[in-house]
Amino acid sequence: MPPTKNIFVNPMTDRFSLGIAIEKISVKKADFKAEEHCREATQPHRDEGHTFYILQEGTITIEIDFQQYEIKAPTVVYMHPNQVHRILDFTPMNICSLAVKNENVNPDYLSFLEELAPAKPLELTDNICTDIFETFSLCLKFSGQHNNKLYYPLLKDSSNTLIALIISAFLKQNTVSNKSSRAELITKSFKRLLEINYGTIKRPAEYAKQLNISTHYLNEV
Amino acid sequence: MPPTKNIFVNPMTDRFSLGIAIEKISVKKADFKAEEHCREATQPHRDEGHTFYILQEGTITIEIDFQQYEIKAPTVVYMHPNQVHRILDFTPMNICSLAVKNENVNPDYLSFLEELAPAKPLELTDNICTDIFETFSLCLKFSGQHNNKLYYPLLKDSSNTLIALIISAFLKQNTVSNKSSRAELITKSFKRLLEINYGTIKRPAEYAKQLNISTHYLNEV
Repeated sequence: MPPTKNIFVNPMTDRFSLGIAIEKISVKKADFKAEEHCREATQPHRDEGHTFYILQEGTITIEIDFQQYEIKAPTVVYMHPNQVHRILDFTPMNICSLAVKNENVNPDYLSFLEELAPAKPLELTDNICTDIFETFSLCLKFSGQHNNKLYYPLLKDSSNTLIALIISAFLKQNTVSNKSSRAELITKSFKRLLEINYGTIKRPAEYAKQLNISTHYLNEV
Repeated sequence: MPPTKNIFVNPMTDRFSLGIAIEKISVKKADFKAEEHCREATQPHRDEGHTFYILQEGTITIEIDFQQYEIKAPTVVYMHPNQVHRILDFTPMNICSLAVKNENVNPDYLSFLEELAPAKPLELTDNICTDIFETFSLCLKFSGQHNNKLYYPLLKDSSNTLIALIISAFLKQNTVSNKSSRAELITKSFKRLLEINYGTIKRPAEYAKQLNISTHYLNEV
Protein backbone atom coordinates (compact mmCIF):
# COMPACT_ATOMS: atom_id res chain seq x y z
CA MET A 1 0.00 0.00 0.00
CA PRO A 2 1.56 3.36 -0.99
CA PRO A 3 1.63 6.12 1.67
CA THR A 4 -1.65 8.00 1.70
CA LYS A 5 -1.11 11.75 1.59
CA ASN A 6 -4.19 12.77 3.56
CA ILE A 7 -3.44 10.52 6.53
CA PHE A 8 -1.61 12.18 9.41
CA VAL A 9 1.85 10.71 9.99
CA ASN A 10 2.90 10.73 13.63
CA PRO A 11 6.61 11.69 13.42
CA MET A 12 7.39 11.02 17.13
CA THR A 13 10.11 13.67 16.93
CA ASP A 14 10.49 14.27 20.68
CA ARG A 15 11.40 10.78 21.78
CA PHE A 16 12.63 9.48 18.46
CA SER A 17 15.86 11.39 17.82
CA LEU A 18 17.92 8.16 17.67
CA GLY A 19 15.31 6.39 15.58
CA ILE A 20 14.38 4.00 18.41
CA ALA A 21 11.60 4.68 20.91
CA ILE A 22 10.76 2.30 23.76
CA GLU A 23 7.90 2.92 26.15
CA LYS A 24 5.70 1.14 28.65
CA ILE A 25 2.35 2.81 29.05
CA SER A 26 -0.29 2.14 31.69
CA VAL A 27 -3.44 3.94 30.68
CA LYS A 28 -7.05 4.31 31.85
CA LYS A 29 -9.70 5.94 29.67
CA ALA A 30 -10.02 8.94 31.99
CA ASP A 31 -6.25 9.67 31.84
CA PHE A 32 -6.15 9.09 28.14
CA LYS A 33 -8.88 11.60 27.29
CA ALA A 34 -7.00 14.26 29.17
CA GLU A 35 -3.77 13.49 27.35
CA GLU A 36 -2.47 15.35 24.37
CA HIS A 37 -1.90 12.30 22.15
CA CYS A 38 -5.50 11.10 22.58
CA ARG A 39 -6.47 12.97 19.40
CA GLU A 40 -3.60 11.40 17.44
CA ALA A 41 -4.35 7.86 18.65
CA THR A 42 -8.10 8.01 17.99
CA GLN A 43 -7.81 9.60 14.52
CA PRO A 44 -6.64 7.44 11.61
CA HIS A 45 -2.87 7.94 11.37
CA ARG A 46 0.40 6.31 10.41
CA ASP A 47 3.48 6.15 12.66
CA GLU A 48 7.00 6.85 11.45
CA GLY A 49 9.01 3.64 11.55
CA HIS A 50 8.02 0.08 12.33
CA THR A 51 5.93 -0.12 15.47
CA PHE A 52 5.39 -3.11 17.74
CA TYR A 53 2.68 -2.85 20.37
CA ILE A 54 2.67 -5.62 22.95
CA LEU A 55 -0.55 -5.56 24.95
CA GLN A 56 0.40 -6.88 28.38
CA GLU A 57 -2.86 -6.29 30.23
CA GLY A 58 -6.37 -5.23 29.21
CA THR A 59 -8.32 -5.21 25.96
CA ILE A 60 -8.33 -2.79 23.07
CA THR A 61 -10.43 -2.23 19.95
CA ILE A 62 -8.24 -1.04 17.13
CA GLU A 63 -8.83 -0.33 13.46
CA ILE A 64 -5.92 -1.25 11.19
CA ASP A 65 -6.19 -0.47 7.47
CA PHE A 66 -9.90 0.19 8.12
CA GLN A 67 -10.48 -3.31 9.51
CA GLN A 68 -11.54 -3.61 13.14
CA TYR A 69 -9.88 -5.94 15.68
CA GLU A 70 -10.85 -6.74 19.28
CA ILE A 71 -7.59 -7.53 21.03
CA LYS A 72 -7.03 -9.02 24.46
CA ALA A 73 -3.71 -9.38 26.28
CA PRO A 74 -1.22 -10.93 25.70
CA THR A 75 -1.11 -9.95 22.04
CA VAL A 76 1.45 -8.32 19.78
CA VAL A 77 0.48 -5.91 17.02
CA TYR A 78 2.99 -5.14 14.27
CA MET A 79 2.41 -1.96 12.34
CA HIS A 80 4.29 -1.32 9.09
CA PRO A 81 5.03 2.41 8.49
CA ASN A 82 2.45 2.35 5.69
CA GLN A 83 -0.39 1.00 7.81
CA VAL A 84 -3.14 3.37 8.86
CA HIS A 85 -4.65 2.72 12.26
CA ARG A 86 -6.61 4.24 15.11
CA ILE A 87 -7.71 3.23 18.59
CA LEU A 88 -11.49 2.89 18.93
CA ASP A 89 -11.91 1.72 22.52
CA PHE A 90 -10.06 0.03 25.41
CA THR A 91 -10.25 -1.13 29.02
CA PRO A 92 -7.48 -0.08 31.46
CA MET A 93 -4.35 -1.48 29.85
CA ASN A 94 -0.58 -1.91 29.94
CA ILE A 95 1.08 -1.56 26.58
CA CYS A 96 4.75 -2.09 25.76
CA SER A 97 5.74 -0.27 22.59
CA LEU A 98 8.82 -0.30 20.42
CA ALA A 99 9.11 1.98 17.39
CA VAL A 100 12.17 1.68 15.16
CA LYS A 101 13.10 3.54 12.00
CA ASN A 102 14.13 1.53 8.94
CA GLU A 103 17.84 2.34 9.28
CA ASN A 104 17.99 0.78 12.76
CA VAL A 105 16.35 -2.48 11.80
CA ASN A 106 18.72 -5.38 10.99
CA PRO A 107 18.42 -5.61 7.14
CA ASP A 108 17.49 -9.32 7.33
CA TYR A 109 14.57 -8.49 9.59
CA LEU A 110 13.41 -5.69 7.27
CA SER A 111 12.82 -8.26 4.51
CA PHE A 112 10.79 -10.40 6.91
CA LEU A 113 8.75 -7.40 8.03
CA GLU A 114 7.98 -6.42 4.43
CA GLU A 115 6.74 -9.98 3.84
CA LEU A 116 4.72 -10.09 7.06
CA ALA A 117 2.88 -6.81 6.46
CA PRO A 118 -0.07 -6.43 6.69
CA ALA A 119 -0.03 -8.70 9.75
CA LYS A 120 -3.07 -9.47 11.86
CA PRO A 121 -2.59 -9.02 15.63
CA LEU A 122 -0.98 -12.13 17.09
CA GLU A 123 -2.10 -13.63 20.38
CA LEU A 124 0.96 -14.83 22.30
CA THR A 125 1.45 -18.32 23.68
CA ASP A 126 3.04 -18.79 27.11
CA ASN A 127 6.68 -19.46 26.19
CA ILE A 128 7.14 -16.79 23.57
CA CYS A 129 5.18 -14.38 25.76
CA THR A 130 7.68 -14.73 28.63
CA ASP A 131 10.65 -14.32 26.27
CA ILE A 132 9.13 -11.21 24.69
CA PHE A 133 8.33 -9.49 28.00
CA GLU A 134 11.75 -10.32 29.49
CA THR A 135 13.48 -8.95 26.41
CA PHE A 136 11.24 -5.88 26.38
CA SER A 137 12.08 -5.19 30.06
CA LEU A 138 15.78 -5.16 29.20
CA CYS A 139 15.22 -2.84 26.21
CA LEU A 140 13.21 -0.49 28.42
CA LYS A 141 15.93 -0.54 31.09
CA PHE A 142 18.69 0.19 28.55
CA SER A 143 16.61 3.03 27.08
CA GLY A 144 16.88 4.79 30.45
CA GLN A 145 20.67 4.41 30.75
CA HIS A 146 21.62 7.59 28.92
CA ASN A 147 25.05 7.69 30.57
CA ASN A 148 26.09 4.35 29.14
CA LYS A 149 28.93 4.94 26.70
CA LEU A 150 27.38 2.41 24.32
CA TYR A 151 23.82 3.73 24.79
CA TYR A 152 22.83 3.77 21.12
CA PRO A 153 24.34 0.41 19.98
CA LEU A 154 23.04 -1.26 23.16
CA LEU A 155 19.54 0.04 22.40
CA LYS A 156 19.85 -1.01 18.77
CA ASP A 157 21.06 -4.57 19.46
CA SER A 158 18.53 -5.19 22.22
CA SER A 159 15.67 -3.77 20.10
CA ASN A 160 16.69 -6.00 17.20
CA THR A 161 16.69 -8.99 19.56
CA LEU A 162 13.08 -8.11 20.43
CA ILE A 163 12.20 -7.65 16.75
CA ALA A 164 13.70 -11.08 15.96
CA LEU A 165 11.60 -12.66 18.71
CA ILE A 166 8.41 -11.01 17.46
CA ILE A 167 9.10 -11.95 13.82
CA SER A 168 9.76 -15.56 14.82
CA ALA A 169 6.41 -15.62 16.68
CA PHE A 170 4.65 -14.39 13.52
CA LEU A 171 6.54 -16.87 11.33
CA LYS A 172 5.54 -19.73 13.61
CA GLN A 173 1.89 -18.69 13.30
CA ASN A 174 2.19 -18.25 9.51
CA THR A 175 3.48 -21.81 9.15
CA VAL A 176 0.29 -22.95 10.87
CA SER A 177 -1.98 -20.76 8.71
CA ASN A 178 -0.11 -21.75 5.53
CA LYS A 179 -0.88 -25.36 6.40
CA SER A 180 -4.57 -24.56 6.65
CA SER A 181 -4.51 -22.58 3.37
CA ARG A 182 -2.95 -25.60 1.65
CA ALA A 183 -5.83 -27.70 2.97
CA GLU A 184 -8.30 -25.11 1.70
CA LEU A 185 -6.58 -25.04 -1.67
CA ILE A 186 -6.75 -28.83 -2.01
CA THR A 187 -10.43 -28.84 -0.98
CA LYS A 188 -11.20 -26.23 -3.66
CA SER A 189 -9.29 -28.16 -6.36
CA PHE A 190 -10.97 -31.42 -5.36
CA LYS A 191 -14.45 -29.84 -5.59
CA ARG A 192 -13.61 -28.44 -9.02
CA LEU A 193 -12.41 -31.87 -10.26
CA LEU A 194 -15.50 -33.46 -8.76
CA GLU A 195 -17.82 -31.06 -10.60
CA ILE A 196 -16.21 -31.94 -13.93
CA ASN A 197 -15.70 -35.69 -13.42
CA TYR A 198 -18.40 -36.90 -11.02
CA GLY A 199 -20.03 -38.94 -13.81
CA THR A 200 -16.85 -40.78 -14.88
CA ILE A 201 -14.50 -40.95 -11.82
CA LYS A 202 -15.82 -42.48 -8.60
CA ARG A 203 -12.72 -43.60 -6.68
CA PRO A 204 -11.02 -41.05 -4.32
CA ALA A 205 -7.63 -42.58 -5.29
CA GLU A 206 -8.12 -41.28 -8.85
CA TYR A 207 -8.79 -37.75 -7.64
CA ALA A 208 -5.83 -37.95 -5.25
CA LYS A 209 -3.58 -38.96 -8.16
CA GLN A 210 -4.75 -36.01 -10.22
CA LEU A 211 -4.07 -33.71 -7.25
CA ASN A 212 -0.59 -35.24 -6.76
CA ILE A 213 -1.37 -36.21 -3.16
CA SER A 214 -2.00 -39.49 -1.34
CA THR A 215 -5.55 -40.82 -0.90
CA HIS A 216 -4.93 -40.73 2.86
CA TYR A 217 -4.09 -37.01 2.75
CA LEU A 218 -7.12 -36.25 0.55
CA ASN A 219 -9.39 -38.03 3.06
CA GLU A 220 -7.77 -36.06 5.90
CA VAL A 221 -8.34 -32.76 4.12
CA MET B 1 50.79 -10.04 21.04
CA PRO B 2 51.06 -12.26 17.95
CA PRO B 3 49.62 -15.79 18.19
CA THR B 4 52.17 -18.14 19.78
CA LYS B 5 52.60 -21.28 17.73
CA ASN B 6 53.45 -23.60 20.62
CA ILE B 7 50.36 -22.72 22.64
CA PHE B 8 47.39 -25.03 22.20
CA VAL B 9 44.40 -23.28 20.63
CA ASN B 10 41.06 -24.63 21.83
CA PRO B 11 38.95 -24.65 18.64
CA MET B 12 35.63 -25.48 20.38
CA THR B 13 34.50 -27.17 17.18
CA ASP B 14 31.68 -29.23 18.69
CA ARG B 15 29.57 -26.45 20.10
CA PHE B 16 30.90 -23.62 17.97
CA SER B 17 29.62 -24.38 14.48
CA LEU B 18 27.72 -21.07 14.27
CA GLY B 19 30.62 -19.12 15.77
CA ILE B 20 28.70 -18.41 19.00
CA ALA B 21 28.85 -20.62 22.09
CA ILE B 22 26.89 -19.89 25.25
CA GLU B 23 27.17 -22.00 28.37
CA LYS B 24 26.46 -21.92 32.07
CA ILE B 25 28.73 -24.23 34.01
CA SER B 26 28.43 -25.27 37.65
CA VAL B 27 31.61 -27.06 38.62
CA LYS B 28 33.21 -28.58 41.68
CA LYS B 29 36.87 -29.61 41.75
CA ALA B 30 36.01 -33.32 41.99
CA ASP B 31 33.79 -33.17 38.87
CA PHE B 32 36.29 -31.07 37.03
CA LYS B 33 39.19 -33.47 37.48
CA ALA B 34 37.10 -36.25 36.05
CA GLU B 35 36.12 -34.19 33.04
CA GLU B 36 37.77 -34.32 29.67
CA HIS B 37 38.41 -30.59 29.31
CA CYS B 38 40.25 -30.41 32.67
CA ARG B 39 43.56 -30.90 30.82
CA GLU B 40 42.75 -28.10 28.36
CA ALA B 41 41.67 -25.64 31.05
CA THR B 42 44.66 -26.23 33.34
CA GLN B 43 47.29 -26.13 30.58
CA PRO B 44 48.21 -22.73 29.04
CA HIS B 45 45.99 -22.33 25.97
CA ARG B 46 44.19 -19.84 23.77
CA ASP B 47 40.49 -20.03 22.85
CA GLU B 48 39.18 -19.47 19.35
CA GLY B 49 37.14 -16.28 19.29
CA HIS B 50 36.52 -13.65 21.92
CA THR B 51 35.60 -15.21 25.24
CA PHE B 52 33.72 -13.62 28.12
CA TYR B 53 33.66 -15.50 31.42
CA ILE B 54 31.26 -14.14 34.01
CA LEU B 55 31.95 -15.66 37.40
CA GLN B 56 28.58 -15.75 39.16
CA GLU B 57 29.52 -17.70 42.28
CA GLY B 58 32.79 -18.89 43.80
CA THR B 59 36.44 -17.94 43.45
CA ILE B 60 39.02 -18.85 40.86
CA THR B 61 42.76 -18.45 40.43
CA ILE B 62 43.60 -17.89 36.80
CA GLU B 63 46.78 -17.08 34.92
CA ILE B 64 46.32 -14.73 31.96
CA ASP B 65 49.34 -13.91 29.80
CA PHE B 66 51.43 -15.50 32.56
CA GLN B 67 50.14 -13.10 35.22
CA GLN B 68 48.15 -14.59 38.09
CA TYR B 69 44.75 -13.25 39.25
CA GLU B 70 42.63 -14.26 42.25
CA ILE B 71 39.07 -13.65 41.19
CA LYS B 72 35.93 -13.68 43.29
CA ALA B 73 32.33 -13.46 42.02
CA PRO B 74 30.79 -11.37 40.55
CA THR B 75 33.57 -10.68 38.07
CA VAL B 76 33.82 -10.65 34.30
CA VAL B 77 36.95 -11.80 32.48
CA TYR B 78 37.42 -10.84 28.84
CA MET B 79 39.84 -12.95 26.85
CA HIS B 80 41.07 -11.76 23.46
CA PRO B 81 41.75 -14.67 21.02
CA ASN B 82 45.48 -13.94 21.40
CA GLN B 83 45.56 -14.20 25.17
CA VAL B 84 47.07 -17.29 26.73
CA HIS B 85 45.47 -18.44 29.95
CA ARG B 86 45.01 -21.40 32.29
CA ILE B 87 43.03 -22.17 35.41
CA LEU B 88 45.22 -22.77 38.47
CA ASP B 89 42.65 -23.31 41.22
CA PHE B 90 39.00 -22.68 42.18
CA THR B 91 36.30 -23.21 44.78
CA PRO B 92 32.92 -24.64 43.66
CA MET B 93 31.73 -22.09 41.11
CA ASN B 94 29.09 -21.00 38.62
CA ILE B 95 30.49 -19.57 35.42
CA CYS B 96 28.54 -18.03 32.56
CA SER B 97 30.54 -18.11 29.35
CA LEU B 98 30.07 -16.54 25.93
CA ALA B 99 32.53 -17.24 23.10
CA VAL B 100 32.06 -15.42 19.80
CA LYS B 101 34.08 -15.57 16.61
CA ASN B 102 35.23 -12.28 15.05
CA GLU B 103 32.68 -12.40 12.22
CA ASN B 104 29.77 -12.46 14.66
CA VAL B 105 30.89 -9.49 16.72
CA ASN B 106 29.35 -6.14 15.78
CA PRO B 107 32.28 -4.34 13.99
CA ASP B 108 32.03 -1.32 16.33
CA TYR B 109 32.49 -3.60 19.33
CA LEU B 110 35.49 -5.32 17.72
CA SER B 111 37.37 -2.01 17.73
CA PHE B 112 36.55 -1.51 21.42
CA LEU B 113 37.69 -5.06 22.22
CA GLU B 114 40.99 -4.56 20.41
CA GLU B 115 41.53 -1.42 22.49
CA LEU B 116 40.51 -3.07 25.76
CA ALA B 117 42.83 -6.08 25.39
CA PRO B 118 44.69 -7.11 27.46
CA ALA B 119 41.98 -6.38 30.05
CA LYS B 120 42.31 -7.19 33.74
CA PRO B 121 39.35 -9.09 35.25
CA LEU B 122 36.62 -6.63 36.19
CA GLU B 123 34.68 -6.92 39.44
CA LEU B 124 31.04 -6.05 38.78
CA THR B 125 29.03 -3.45 40.65
CA ASP B 126 25.39 -4.16 41.57
CA ASN B 127 23.54 -2.45 38.71
CA ILE B 128 25.65 -3.62 35.83
CA CYS B 129 25.83 -7.07 37.43
CA THR B 130 22.04 -7.47 37.33
CA ASP B 131 21.86 -6.26 33.72
CA ILE B 132 24.63 -8.64 32.65
CA PHE B 133 23.09 -11.71 34.30
CA GLU B 134 19.59 -10.93 33.00
CA THR B 135 20.95 -10.52 29.47
CA PHE B 136 23.06 -13.66 29.78
CA SER B 137 19.97 -15.64 30.90
CA LEU B 138 18.16 -14.58 27.73
CA CYS B 139 21.16 -15.49 25.53
CA LEU B 140 21.35 -18.89 27.20
CA LYS B 141 17.60 -19.44 26.71
CA PHE B 142 17.77 -18.46 23.02
CA SER B 143 20.77 -20.77 22.52
CA GLY B 144 18.50 -23.69 23.42
CA GLN B 145 15.69 -22.73 21.01
CA HIS B 146 17.02 -24.60 17.99
CA ASN B 147 13.57 -24.70 16.37
CA ASN B 148 13.27 -20.92 16.25
CA LYS B 149 13.27 -19.86 12.59
CA LEU B 150 15.52 -16.93 13.49
CA TYR B 151 17.80 -19.00 15.76
CA TYR B 152 21.11 -17.67 14.46
CA PRO B 153 20.27 -13.93 14.16
CA LEU B 154 18.51 -14.04 17.55
CA LEU B 155 21.61 -15.58 19.11
CA LYS B 156 23.84 -13.05 17.35
CA ASP B 157 21.84 -9.96 18.36
CA SER B 158 21.39 -11.07 21.96
CA SER B 159 25.09 -11.99 22.26
CA ASN B 160 26.08 -8.60 20.88
CA THR B 161 23.78 -6.95 23.44
CA LEU B 162 25.71 -8.80 26.15
CA ILE B 163 29.05 -7.84 24.58
CA ALA B 164 27.94 -4.17 24.52
CA LEU B 165 27.03 -4.35 28.21
CA ILE B 166 30.37 -5.91 29.14
CA ILE B 167 32.36 -3.42 27.06
CA SER B 168 30.49 -0.51 28.65
CA ALA B 169 31.34 -1.91 32.11
CA PHE B 170 35.05 -2.01 31.15
CA LEU B 171 34.88 1.49 29.64
CA LYS B 172 33.31 2.84 32.82
CA GLN B 173 36.15 1.33 34.86
CA ASN B 174 38.79 2.63 32.46
CA THR B 175 37.48 6.18 32.89
CA VAL B 176 37.99 5.77 36.63
CA SER B 177 41.48 4.27 36.28
CA ASN B 178 42.48 6.97 33.78
CA LYS B 179 41.53 9.53 36.38
CA SER B 180 43.80 7.88 38.93
CA SER B 181 46.69 7.60 36.44
CA ARG B 182 46.37 11.32 35.75
CA ALA B 183 46.72 11.96 39.49
CA GLU B 184 49.78 9.68 39.57
CA LEU B 185 51.24 11.47 36.55
CA ILE B 186 50.83 14.87 38.20
CA THR B 187 52.36 13.61 41.45
CA LYS B 188 55.38 12.31 39.55
CA SER B 189 55.82 15.57 37.61
CA PHE B 190 55.44 17.62 40.80
CA LYS B 191 58.11 15.55 42.59
CA ARG B 192 60.46 16.00 39.64
CA LEU B 193 59.93 19.80 39.63
CA LEU B 194 60.41 19.85 43.41
CA GLU B 195 63.75 18.01 43.17
CA ILE B 196 65.04 20.60 40.69
CA ASN B 197 63.58 23.76 42.21
CA TYR B 198 63.20 23.16 45.94
CA GLY B 199 65.89 25.78 46.65
CA THR B 200 64.32 28.56 44.58
CA ILE B 201 60.54 27.95 44.44
CA LYS B 202 58.62 27.57 47.70
CA ARG B 203 54.95 28.40 46.83
CA PRO B 204 52.65 25.57 45.61
CA ALA B 205 50.94 28.09 43.27
CA GLU B 206 54.19 28.39 41.28
CA TYR B 207 54.45 24.64 40.85
CA ALA B 208 50.75 24.44 39.92
CA LYS B 209 51.31 27.09 37.23
CA GLN B 210 54.24 25.13 35.76
CA LEU B 211 52.06 22.00 35.73
CA ASN B 212 49.17 23.89 34.04
CA ILE B 213 46.77 23.03 36.87
CA SER B 214 45.10 24.97 39.70
CA THR B 215 46.71 25.12 43.16
CA HIS B 216 43.53 23.56 44.53
CA TYR B 217 43.88 20.55 42.19
CA LEU B 218 47.57 20.15 43.01
CA ASN B 219 46.72 20.10 46.73
CA GLU B 220 43.99 17.55 46.09
CA VAL B 221 46.37 15.28 44.15
